[in-house]
Amino acid sequence: MKKFVNDPKQFVPEMLKGLALANPDTLKYVPEYNLIGRASGPSDDKVSIIQGSGSGHEPAHVMAVGKGMLDAACPGDVFSAPPMDYVYETTKLWNSAKGVLLLVNNYTGDRMAFDMAQEMSLADGVNVKTLFIDDDVAVQDSTWTVGRRGVAGNFFVIKAVGAAAEEGASLEELVRIGEKVNSVTRTMGLALTACTPPAKGEPLFDLGDDEIEIGVGIHGEPGRRRAKIVPSDELVDILLEPVVADLPFQSGDRVALMINGLGGTPISELYVAYGHAHEQLAAQGIEVVKSYVGEYCTSLDMAGASLTLVRLDDEIERLLDAPAEIGYRVF
Amino acid sequence: MKKFVNDPKQFVPEMLKGLALANPDTLKYVPEYNLIGRASGPSDDKVSIIQGSGSGHEPAHVMAVGKGMLDAACPGDVFSAPPMDYVYETTKLWNSAKGVLLLVNNYTGDRMAFDMAQEMSLADGVNVKTLFIDDDVAVQDSTWTVGRRGVAGNFFVIKAVGAAAEEGASLEELVRIGEKVNSVTRTMGLALTACTPPAKGEPLFDLGDDEIEIGVGIHGEPGRRRAKIVPSDELVDILLEPVVADLPFQSGDRVALMINGLGGTPISELYVAYGHAHEQLAAQGIEVVKSYVGEYCTSLDMAGASLTLVRLDDEIERLLDAPAEIGYRVF
Repeated sequence: MKKFVNDPKQFVPEMLKGLALANPDTLKYVPEYNLIGRASGPSDDKVSIIQGSGSGHEPAHVMAVGKGMLDAACPGDVFSAPPMDYVYETTKLWNSAKGVLLLVNNYTGDRMAFDMAQEMSLADGVNVKTLFIDDDVAVQDSTWTVGRRGVAGNFFVIKAVGAAAEEGASLEELVRIGEKVNSVTRTMGLALTACTPPAKGEPLFDLGDDEIEIGVGIHGEPGRRRAKIVPSDELVDILLEPVVADLPFQSGDRVALMINGLGGTPISELYVAYGHAHEQLAAQGIEVVKSYVGEYCTSLDMAGASLTLVRLDDEIERLLDAPAEIGYRVF
Repeated sequence: MKKFVNDPKQFVPEMLKGLALANPDTLKYVPEYNLIGRASGPSDDKVSIIQGSGSGHEPAHVMAVGKGMLDAACPGDVFSAPPMDYVYETTKLWNSAKGVLLLVNNYTGDRMAFDMAQEMSLADGVNVKTLFIDDDVAVQDSTWTVGRRGVAGNFFVIKAVGAAAEEGASLEELVRIGEKVNSVTRTMGLALTACTPPAKGEPLFDLGDDEIEIGVGIHGEPGRRRAKIVPSDELVDILLEPVVADLPFQSGDRVALMINGLGGTPISELYVAYGHAHEQLAAQGIEVVKSYVGEYCTSLDMAGASLTLVRLDDEIERLLDAPAEIGYRVF
C-alpha cells in the first residue's frame, strides 16, 4: 500500500484534524465524536442538518459542512457507519428550536445507528426527523443494504435542503423537499479499479487488468456485472441508459447532470465522459441545465465514476442555484 | 489501460468540449486552438491573462479560466507544449488596450512556443509581456527544462495577477506582482505511482510496489531520488524540509500552504498530509494563514502530492483573498 497514511487506525482522526486546521474560521472539530461542524455552532433560526456515514467518501460528508449545506457531519471509520453515540451526541450538540434533520444514505448499518440516535434524541426532547437517500439504480438489495443504496445523488438532497434551511424552512418542509429531490434523483457508477482501505492495506476486491465492475457500490460492493473495458462513450452509455430508464427521464425534462469521480480518476477524464452524456441526453430531448463534474462522493482511491441525473422543477432548480459555502477552500 | 478515453488523439478536444458544454454561460471553446476563454471575451478595461501548457494537469489551466483568474487558456496535447500558433491566435483574440500577459511554466518547449508567439504578437502591435514560473525546488535542470520547473505554485501567480487585473492594474504592475509571487513560492512533489498517458496506454515509468519518486516532475520526469514508501508524516517531512530550506522560510513568516493532489490520490489523504505539514510549520514559528488542499495541478492519474509554500505580505494576502470564479462548477 502506497498512501499518505500513518497508523491506519488514525486515518480518519488525522484527516479530520487536517480539515479543521485548514479551516479554523469556518469549521469546528470535536474529536470524541468525529464531529466536524460549523464554527458558528447551531442557530435557533434554522433547522440543523446533520449527515453521518462511513468515511472514505470525501468530500462527502465532512467537507460538505458549510453555509447552505450541512451544519455538522459525524462520520464513522472508513466504510463503517458512525457509532450510534456519535450521531446522538452530534444531534444534541446541534439541537435547534427549529429542529434537527438527519440525512442518511440507505445502508443497514447507518440506518440502525441513526434510528437509535433519533429515538434517544426524541426521548431527550429534541425535535428530530430522518431522511433516507437511495438514488442508486444498480441493484435492489446489496451487500450492506436492504433496498437501494444511497450514493452521489445525496449531494443534491444536501444542497436543496441546505438552501431551504438557510431561508428558514421548517423541519416538515425540509423533509418534503428532501424526499422530493431523492424521488427524482438517479445514479449509477462503475469501477475501473478496486480501492484500498488503509486498514486492509490491499485492494478490497480483484478486478482484472481489462475488467470493470458495472453498478459498483461506493464501498466496492458488487454491482450488476463484470465486463471488459470499452471506450469512454460506451462506458457512459452503460451508465446513462439504466439511469434514464429508471425514473424514467423523458423528452422535455430539464435535468442536472453529475459526473462524479470515485477518487482515482482525474477530472480530465470526467469531462470526456460529461461531454458524451450531455450530448446523448440532448439527442433524447432531455435538457441539461445544471452540470456538476468532479469528486462529490468517492470510494477512497477507486478509479471510476458515477453518473447522476436529477429531474428539475422550479423549486429544485432555485434551491440548487442558491449560494453555498463548503468546508474546504477551492480557489 | 482502463480510462474514460475514446480515441487517445481526441482526448484533449473531447475534454475541452465537455468543459464547454458544462459551462455554456461562462466559457467559450474555440476548437482550432484548444482555446478555452471567458464567454464574455476580452475587455479593454483589463489586461488579458493567458496561460498555455501541456494538457494532463487539469484543473490547470483550462479550468482556471474565470473572473479573477485567467481570461483564456490554450493547452497543447497531453504533456506537450501548445503549438506556437495556438498561443499567437489566442493572444490576438484576447488582445486588450491594456495589454496581454502570458503566463508560462518554465519548460523548454513551452518557452519556445510562447517566445515566438510573443514576438509575432508584438509585431502585430499587441502589447504583450510574458512571465515565467519556476517554483519547483526539486531539481535545477531536468528532462524538459533548463532551470527550475514550474509546477503547482503557478496557481498563486494566476490568483494574484488575476485579482490585480480585475482591479485594473497595468501590464507592468501585473508583471511586478507575478514576479514577486513567483519569487516567494516554493514547491516539491512526490509520486506514489506513475501516470498513464492515453496515447501511451501504459505507465510512463516503472515504480516498484514499495517505491516512491521524490521530487518527481508533473510529466513524470525523474526527481531527486527513489526511496521506499514510509508513513505519511515522513512523506510530508521529505517535501517540507527542502521547500522550507530553499527560500528559506523562517520563524515569523506568514504563509499559504498548499497540498496538491497529483490526480490519483484522494482528498482524504491530502488532509492527512496537510495536518502534519501545518503542525510542523507551526512548530518552526511559521504561521499558515491560508490553506489550499485538493487538486490544482495534476499529472493525469498519478498518485502522489506536492507541497507548496508562499511567503505572504499584505499585498499578496489581499490578492489571494479576492473573489474568484472558476471555469467549473463545484457546489
